[in-house]
Amino acid sequence: MSRAMASRGLWCYWTLILLYGIGLCAAFRPPRPYLLGGAASAAARRSMPLTKIRPFDTFYFTQVLDHFTFKDAVRHPEETFQQRYLVNQEFWHGAQKAGPIFLYCGNEGDIEWFAENTGFLFEIAPRLGALLIFPEHRYYGESMPFGNQERAYKNADSLSYLTTEQALADFATLITDFKKNLSAEASPVVAFGGSYGGMLAAWFRLKYPHIVIGALASSAPILQFENLVPNDIFNKIVSLDFKEESDACFDIVRNSWSAIEALAAEEGGLHILSAKFHLCREVCKAMTNLPDDFDILSRIFAGISVYYNFTGEVDCFDLSADPHGMSGWGWQACTEMIMPMSSNPNNSMVFPYGWDLQAYINGCLSTYNANARPNWAVTEFGGQDIKSVLRHFGSNIIFSNGLLDPWSGGSVLEDISSTIIAIITKEGAHHLDLRSSTKEDPGWLVDQRELEISKIRQWLGEFYETLIVI
Amino acid sequence: MSRAMASRGLWCYWTLILLYGIGLCAAFRPPRPYLLGGAASAAARRSMPLTKIRPFDTFYFTQVLDHFTFKDAVRHPEETFQQRYLVNQEFWHGAQKAGPIFLYCGNEGDIEWFAENTGFLFEIAPRLGALLIFPEHRYYGESMPFGNQERAYKNADSLSYLTTEQALADFATLITDFKKNLSAEASPVVAFGGSYGGMLAAWFRLKYPHIVIGALASSAPILQFENLVPNDIFNKIVSLDFKEESDACFDIVRNSWSAIEALAAEEGGLHILSAKFHLCREVCKAMTNLPDDFDILSRIFAGISVYYNFTGEVDCFDLSADPHGMSGWGWQACTEMIMPMSSNPNNSMVFPYGWDLQAYINGCLSTYNANARPNWAVTEFGGQDIKSVLRHFGSNIIFSNGLLDPWSGGSVLEDISSTIIAIITKEGAHHLDLRSSTKEDPGWLVDQRELEISKIRQWLGEFYETLIVI
Repeated sequence: MSRAMASRGLWCYWTLILLYGIGLCAAFRPPRPYLLGGAASAAARRSMPLTKIRPFDTFYFTQVLDHFTFKDAVRHPEETFQQRYLVNQEFWHGAQKAGPIFLYCGNEGDIEWFAENTGFLFEIAPRLGALLIFPEHRYYGESMPFGNQERAYKNADSLSYLTTEQALADFATLITDFKKNLSAEASPVVAFGGSYGGMLAAWFRLKYPHIVIGALASSAPILQFENLVPNDIFNKIVSLDFKEESDACFDIVRNSWSAIEALAAEEGGLHILSAKFHLCREVCKAMTNLPDDFDILSRIFAGISVYYNFTGEVDCFDLSADPHGMSGWGWQACTEMIMPMSSNPNNSMVFPYGWDLQAYINGCLSTYNANARPNWAVTEFGGQDIKSVLRHFGSNIIFSNGLLDPWSGGSVLEDISSTIIAIITKEGAHHLDLRSSTKEDPGWLVDQRELEISKIRQWLGEFYETLIVI
Repeated sequence: MSRAMASRGLWCYWTLILLYGIGLCAAFRPPRPYLLGGAASAAARRSMPLTKIRPFDTFYFTQVLDHFTFKDAVRHPEETFQQRYLVNQEFWHGAQKAGPIFLYCGNEGDIEWFAENTGFLFEIAPRLGALLIFPEHRYYGESMPFGNQERAYKNADSLSYLTTEQALADFATLITDFKKNLSAEASPVVAFGGSYGGMLAAWFRLKYPHIVIGALASSAPILQFENLVPNDIFNKIVSLDFKEESDACFDIVRNSWSAIEALAAEEGGLHILSAKFHLCREVCKAMTNLPDDFDILSRIFAGISVYYNFTGEVDCFDLSADPHGMSGWGWQACTEMIMPMSSNPNNSMVFPYGWDLQAYINGCLSTYNANARPNWAVTEFGGQDIKSVLRHFGSNIIFSNGLLDPWSGGSVLEDISSTIIAIITKEGAHHLDLRSSTKEDPGWLVDQRELEISKIRQWLGEFYETLIVI
């Protein structure tokens, strides 16, 4: 066993912990959150059959591959791709009445999965007479440039058009054309999104105010860049969540690192780790349900499994597998969506590690051959002094966050102005508000959604005041 | 003489009229305007020696060629270029005091020329303790991707990065780095620009509010796209200007078209036209100074010459020559900056012509091999229902316009909100406010500039209120 292998084993482990940690001890909270840019969503989708429970029609739009350059039209005749989008218009008030359009900003995955898991929109559409549209994010699901995923993901050149700016321009282009085709130019559009999709929704409102009148940005860590928030905030919140739930749970995780290190250093230790974590072929149950005589690693695995394999139908975790194109997020995280993370032993149960930008950049270069631009996101989208900058600029954005969600640490948690507001729920998880309501929903969640609806109603009302409906 | 040649002759003629028309009868008004995206500036610069009358230092910044894609860093190691920028910091209050930075958004030409001709900034810098920075627009002057102009302008692929979005991202990237290097992160930046540069300034504030606290957008026709304003507005204003100045002058131009048509149709007629318009080698005087026995064509030429050759030092007009890289505007006008124009015989003295989008697109394709996107500018930058869209969004933009300027027809002429305002001068010409003051300046021009300064002072004051200066 080389040290390199040992550290690779550890890497896998803490990646899992890092990404799914929030769920470990809060597993009972329905519905289960998926996490930004991690394989959690892929895993969830892998185990969740795409039976269509939400009614929508599927369409494809011929989208411009590169909105920001104009290449030789003769040499590059195929500078377009088919962007998928889903539409539900059964509740729409129609173009004549300038009925509203609710646009979900597709994130890093198959759009059907996001549509299925954004029940909030289907619940409010009939109340507000809205048409729903879910454009898929380029390079995910079926919306592949160059004809198919294999060609789209071939190398850095083919991946180079996978950027947030291009995705926002896709939404702008698509919705403009969509409205024109329906003669619905007068209809107001509201943007929605959760996690990375929430970042897209907020930025869409900020960059394209002529296209969307407002945005509900749920669990959108738009400040998780450069040094806008402390690097250790994510793992600090994860750890606090664990601690709050149970000190024992927190200790199990915190103490597991030395056990892993010791095991990894032993002859054959990585094989044992691999088996423990079912890195090939086993089934599992939740950590805290295990009898007392189970060891720490087994408990950790059980905890992870709640999220990574919550149907119990997956036998193993193939950490390199990527059945749903989620590695696109790896590319994005290595180019412009560079979110510094560290784990500080003073406040974190996660294996301690620092943020080493240069190592990160080198890793991205060797993995993708792409030049990471760690300062670009803040240059393009801002975030520094956000309260001063947006206090007299912009309007109609809701930043909603649950404080149990570690991504809340990089989000906007205070009102910026009377119309750019923060809605905080102490017990909320990752964009819980966008999920379908259930009978078990606590009162604060019901209230949160109603508050969001009242704000959206207000945006629409103000819009219609200035509009002479034909 | 083929019909194609005849119409080419006419085309040249009305292009000249179209671009320089405003000057013909208003020639005495100092200082002389240059016009958006036309060869007028090139001509002016050709005849104006670049003797440095304004003090500035010249620097170069390694700029990202394509901000919105991430190509293979190994295969494309040279994805950068040297962007020139000029700096004057003699009046700056300094980083410690968070002294303001005034950024002139370089337009379609050599930045030295713009710096020389934007005396307003040099006059207000000492009053407000501001540092001045003039970044050059990519693909103009010395700021050439691919090492030199010949390679940059080689074909559509090399030109493809010449877009407004890339230019704005250049400004954002440069000024962010510039401030960091000066430890001036706390310094507020105000954007300035005239004509296309004014459009850049307004859009810079709208798209990058975290980078500039406000913008003075002088003579910025941000609405001259799609059908936001009538296609014929430009020629209508040109014609009204002429008519207001003198009915005789208006009639000379209006009646010249039939004379040209008749001449062009004759055997050898185009040679005569060519000679009349000094399309090779002659010198000229102003139209209205000519003795009565001069014919219409000679008078027209004399009028044109006031602007196209106002020093009288140029012997001829080589319509294809482009000594200052101005053909970059042709590329921009053929890709995203597509401004519909027509001449309506009911209100225009200019040769009547309609706006034929398809013919325009075909022309651009055959000229540049580029796919024109006529709707893109409005999708990206907005403009439709601008009053409703920006009434509760954005702040701190001055749209200044002189109503004699035909570009005012595509600009913002009414206040949008209490902080996005229009300053109109009935007798003003193309971004006259940005020029140096002179003893002959009329009262309204002095007042206009003072009003602009007071607004900028107010933006700065509000910024400093929220800032704790170290």
